[in-house]
Amino acid sequence: VSPGLCKLAHIDLVTPDLDASLFFFRDLLGMHEVERADERVFLRCFGELDHHSLSLRPGPAGVDHVAFRTARPEDVAEFAAAFAAEGIEVSEVGAGEEPGQGEAIRFLAPGLEAPLELLFEIERPRAPESLRSKLPSNSARFAGAAARRLDHVNFATGIDRLAEAEDWLREALGFRRREFIRLPDGRIGGTWLSVTPQVHDVAITTDVQGRTGRFNHFAFNVEEFADICRLADVLAEHDVHVDVPPSRHGITQGHCYYVRDPGSGHRVELFSGGYLIFDPDWEPIEWTLEQLDTHGLVFVGPAEWTRQNNPNAENTPATAAVAR
Amino acid sequence: VSPGLCKLAHIDLVTPDLDASLFFFRDLLGMHEVERADERVFLRCFGELDHHSLSLRPGPAGVDHVAFRTARPEDVAEFAAAFAAEGIEVSEVGAGEEPGQGEAIRFLAPGLEAPLELLFEIERPRAPESLRSKLPSNSARFAGAAARRLDHVNFATGIDRLAEAEDWLREALGFRRREFIRLPDGRIGGTWLSVTPQVHDVAITTDVQGRTGRFNHFAFNVEEFADICRLADVLAEHDVHVDVPPSRHGITQGHCYYVRDPGSGHRVELFSGGYLIFDPDWEPIEWTLEQLDTHGLVFVGPAEWTRQNNPNAENTPATAAVAR
Amino acid sequence: VSPGLCKLAHIDLVTPDLDASLFFFRDLLGMHEVERADERVFLRCFGELDHHSLSLRPGPAGVDHVAFRTARPEDVAEFAAAFAAEGIEVSEVGAGEEPGQGEAIRFLAPGLEAPLELLFEIERPRAPESLRSKLPSNSARFAGAAARRLDHVNFATGIDRLAEAEDWLREALGFRRREFIRLPDGRIGGTWLSVTPQVHDVAITTDVQGRTGRFNHFAFNVEEFADICRLADVLAEHDVHVDVPPSRHGITQGHCYYVRDPGSGHRVELFSGGYLIFDPDWEPIEWTLEQLDTHGLVFVGPAEWTRQNNPNAENTPATAAVAR
Amino acid sequence: VSPGLCKLAHIDLVTPDLDASLFFFRDLLGMHEVERADERVFLRCFGELDHHSLSLRPGPAGVDHVAFRTARPEDVAEFAAAFAAEGIEVSEVGAGEEPGQGEAIRFLAPGLEAPLELLFEIERPRAPESLRSKLPSNSARFAGAAARRLDHVNFATGIDRLAEAEDWLREALGFRRREFIRLPDGRIGGTWLSVTPQVHDVAITTDVQGRTGRFNHFAFNVEEFADICRLADVLAEHDVHVDVPPSRHGITQGHCYYVRDPGSGHRVELFSGGYLIFDPDWEPIEWTLEQLDTHGLVFVGPAEWTRQNNPNAENTPATAAVAR
Repeated sequence: VSPGLCKLAHIDLVTPDLDASLFFFRDLLGMHEVERADERVFLRCFGELDHHSLSLRPGPAGVDHVAFRTARPEDVAEFAAAFAAEGIEVSEVGAGEEPGQGEAIRFLAPGLEAPLELLFEIERPRAPESLRSKLPSNSARFAGAAARRLDHVNFATGIDRLAEAEDWLREALGFRRREFIRLPDGRIGGTWLSVTPQVHDVAITTDVQGRTGRFNHFAFNVEEFADICRLADVLAEHDVHVDVPPSRHGITQGHCYYVRDPGSGHRVELFSGGYLIFDPDWEPIEWTLEQLDTHGLVFVGPAEWTRQNNPNAENTPATAAVAR
Repeated sequence: VSPGLCKLAHIDLVTPDLDASLFFFRDLLGMHEVERADERVFLRCFGELDHHSLSLRPGPAGVDHVAFRTARPEDVAEFAAAFAAEGIEVSEVGAGEEPGQGEAIRFLAPGLEAPLELLFEIERPRAPESLRSKLPSNSARFAGAAARRLDHVNFATGIDRLAEAEDWLREALGFRRREFIRLPDGRIGGTWLSVTPQVHDVAITTDVQGRTGRFNHFAFNVEEFADICRLADVLAEHDVHVDVPPSRHGITQGHCYYVRDPGSGHRVELFSGGYLIFDPDWEPIEWTLEQLDTHGLVFVGPAEWTRQNNPNAENTPATAAVAR
Repeated sequence: VSPGLCKLAHIDLVTPDLDASLFFFRDLLGMHEVERADERVFLRCFGELDHHSLSLRPGPAGVDHVAFRTARPEDVAEFAAAFAAEGIEVSEVGAGEEPGQGEAIRFLAPGLEAPLELLFEIERPRAPESLRSKLPSNSARFAGAAARRLDHVNFATGIDRLAEAEDWLREALGFRRREFIRLPDGRIGGTWLSVTPQVHDVAITTDVQGRTGRFNHFAFNVEEFADICRLADVLAEHDVHVDVPPSRHGITQGHCYYVRDPGSGHRVELFSGGYLIFDPDWEPIEWTLEQLDTHGLVFVGPAEWTRQNNPNAENTPATAAVAR
Repeated sequence: VSPGLCKLAHIDLVTPDLDASLFFFRDLLGMHEVERADERVFLRCFGELDHHSLSLRPGPAGVDHVAFRTARPEDVAEFAAAFAAEGIEVSEVGAGEEPGQGEAIRFLAPGLEAPLELLFEIERPRAPESLRSKLPSNSARFAGAAARRLDHVNFATGIDRLAEAEDWLREALGFRRREFIRLPDGRIGGTWLSVTPQVHDVAITTDVQGRTGRFNHFAFNVEEFADICRLADVLAEHDVHVDVPPSRHGITQGHCYYVRDPGSGHRVELFSGGYLIFDPDWEPIEWTLEQLDTHGLVFVGPAEWTRQNNPNAENTPATAAVAR
């Protein structure tokens, strides 16, 4: 048995305007604050029992790291040994260094050059009585059009590094390819991968400027499209910047809505639906650019619009991976 | 041209527990507080521009009065004269006696013995900037699963007075019958009436103990059934008593959800949908008890359940009309 | 008492491809065929009791006429006399000339130059047993994401004729202005009007080429936005052209979705929600172009997109009013 | 590595009225017919790529077998050997004996006495062009309020056998316990289990008459609660018997709706939502009867109603497992 991952765990976001980011994630998206430590704030969604799925820290806009949880306690150390053997530089995070979590490792994923963290131990604190849900499978009460859990992350890298990045995620971390875009020249232009039955826990799309260490967006799961649409009403009242209005993806079949965190400028997706894959012999689904044009977004508007606002296009967010 | 009504205007509710009622209407249903005067609180929904659609005052549980707005300024006085000529006792409310409104009259509607108020002048204060919606047709911002406006009121009276009550509403106030229940003995067992194209602004159902001056419920309109269902999630976290879970009515076609205000014990409905009637020659729709059993609630559960929880049945709320 | 209208009654659409239009309106939107006469097909929605709200006839793409129902039987003749006195050419349609309807008149509305019909008498045939709904307020059963009734019509005319067109609708037909766009030069750039409490039964927007006798779109009402979104899934499978994906309007607050009938190329809107106006002293809501840019569509995407696809913009449908 | 399961695969239902069952599953729920063989009909949902998830055969009402797919091809034979070693009688189904599938085994699960089938090989035929979806992850087009895939099965057994049944599913087949009901006497009164991250692929509830070999219901997944509610409108038009109207479960958090197949009388659930469990160290959630009373169904109606219609109560469907 080789080491493996069980899920995406959290995003550590660096924001130049902590108050604006807190207003967005906590007051608009409905996340709950679990802990403050130094200048950092740790948040989780009402449907999450773990200590946090998002942490915010002040600083120049960027993603400090993206964390995944391993399948077994011993996997953290086994991954560390395997990566070192590959020549990847691995740094260790001691138990308790990060609030709520045990020992972890950090490294830059080959091809992505994105800072990843792997951990297993995580606290599951009960919410204070005033917030606690009567449903024991939720940590806190439903709120309005609330985000219920972290769903997936979309990395961006240069087209020349994308195959390397995907290969490494599949071979070293056990991700399986679910859907992908085949470019006219035969290369892979985007790929949707998962370690869970979700159609994607991770996607890799291209940075048109060829940069590595980029993030296209991360996404929170909401229960239904009606929640997304009501959130769109609310965000419109607060002039939150919208990249893609509420729509449905052809890839993943999920309903989507892309906006920017007003604090960090980082792109955030609200996502519902999407299909599940239980079969071990799933045949990855291939998309051509032509199919993307017509069914990339099911609620098709004018084709120019779809192309102009494709999350893969030049308006990729200017958030930089911060190597620490 | 005879005097007429343009709409249901507000409910004046008396509650033994003002804080609990405020928590329910303001914090759970999402109404906004417009004004406090003496011990009274005046509230409106985000989609209402008028000064208030609900006022709360402390006291023994009951409805102080139900107010309708007339079609023309002069109608208030014309109605007063007409009622006096009929021998109905009419009391006058001076301009400004009630916050936000001009001259009004109050009286007990024959057959219903329910205290009604008629007014025309009403202030339309802008909401404070912090609440104000960017949509000028709303007074305030959308909130969660929010009530957007007062929708209708359902009076209860003894079966022996129901025909008298309906006749008076039709002849004196200009209500038109839209749907009704025909009992096996030929009498009318319930009736749905409106002065607007809504399928009902007012319903009259029977009090099984034969009492007059009763209210079955009043209803707020929400935009969609998804809003009702999300509200049901929220109310479940607060142990609000439910009379009828989210469902669809056969009469009116509206989606419904009946709960009790924890402060006053009064039944409140959340209502969405319902059809509109624009034709002057609408043929009122007749329902038999047998049809009611099978399609009174479209999301039919076991027939016993439908009958047991029929809003017309014995569990009519114990709110008493308070004649002042 | 002057003559008046009670509602929008039907659209008579001319289509070069009757089969494609029938597939769209009947098989995709869920309308029911009530009658065929000559080469014409008469359809209604499941929530409509009248004989038809749409008739299709083969021919070069266009709208033959738009019909409104009067408030009283005698209004048809009274309107005819009034228009003739104004110098408007009025043609008479004998009872039974149009299937299901009584005497009517037709004329070109000043400023719009659009062919209108006024009628009062309309048959209300029961649906065949196999289609009939158990809800007597519906003519037929719910079907999928079905259109439930004709909602409104949007005329387009040259900016120089718009004020004249609106004035005539208000003065001659009794329409009331509900919301409107004020251009920087002070002129009215668009107006939303109704004879019912709906926020609009009719809109007038501008044809950028200055042409009169144009139609921007007509709209069907669906119960909820979820119905629109599911329909968007279905239409995507059939490559129906989309002008504006599912969204929400700032003006009217309605949810919208604009597509083209594949037979006639005519733009059709699916519309849900929208607010109701019961007050006789409604203050029309003024929009500036700047407000339109930011809140014209609440599910705001990139501003360029909103502007490019504004229904008022140059891609006004190429359907021509056919004067007969 | 021990043999394992990857998912619930199909239900083989025996129905005294094949036409009525076909009307229900195909015409109302929206399943597609893939193949007819002898007198049997094989159906799948639009979101399923496998050959079938439901097969119907004429005969006295009952479930012939419930099939699961194994994780690896060799697991079918490994399970057969392991069961034989336990003394369980295993019968073999040759490749092709069942349309669309390879070799399988059948046996009665200890404690449940329910006939199970395990298979790995399954064909994935493309739908005919006229049905095929433009989304390659779907086999066919969306239809109305359509079932998108088989979701879970709920077995019923006597309270004295329930622990044995659950233990065997956990130990022999690898199911993990997710939520469960603890009775006042300490016994398990119901249990929700899965081999996937779904909160349940299988539930076991009690048959109040103490019988084994019973099925409470099987469930199809729909995308959103709005689909369930629209389906409830449609089923009401066809007098389909309703056990529990559209509601939300506390256990699983899923939205639910229980009806009876008019052909077989078997209870069928429509299910949406529900949460996913990715953590290997999930702590099963314990429910008391008291919690069930208040939050067993979130859209709480009167408590009597919840208890009377609890799927665990005496109205367990009279479908008998048919050992063949």
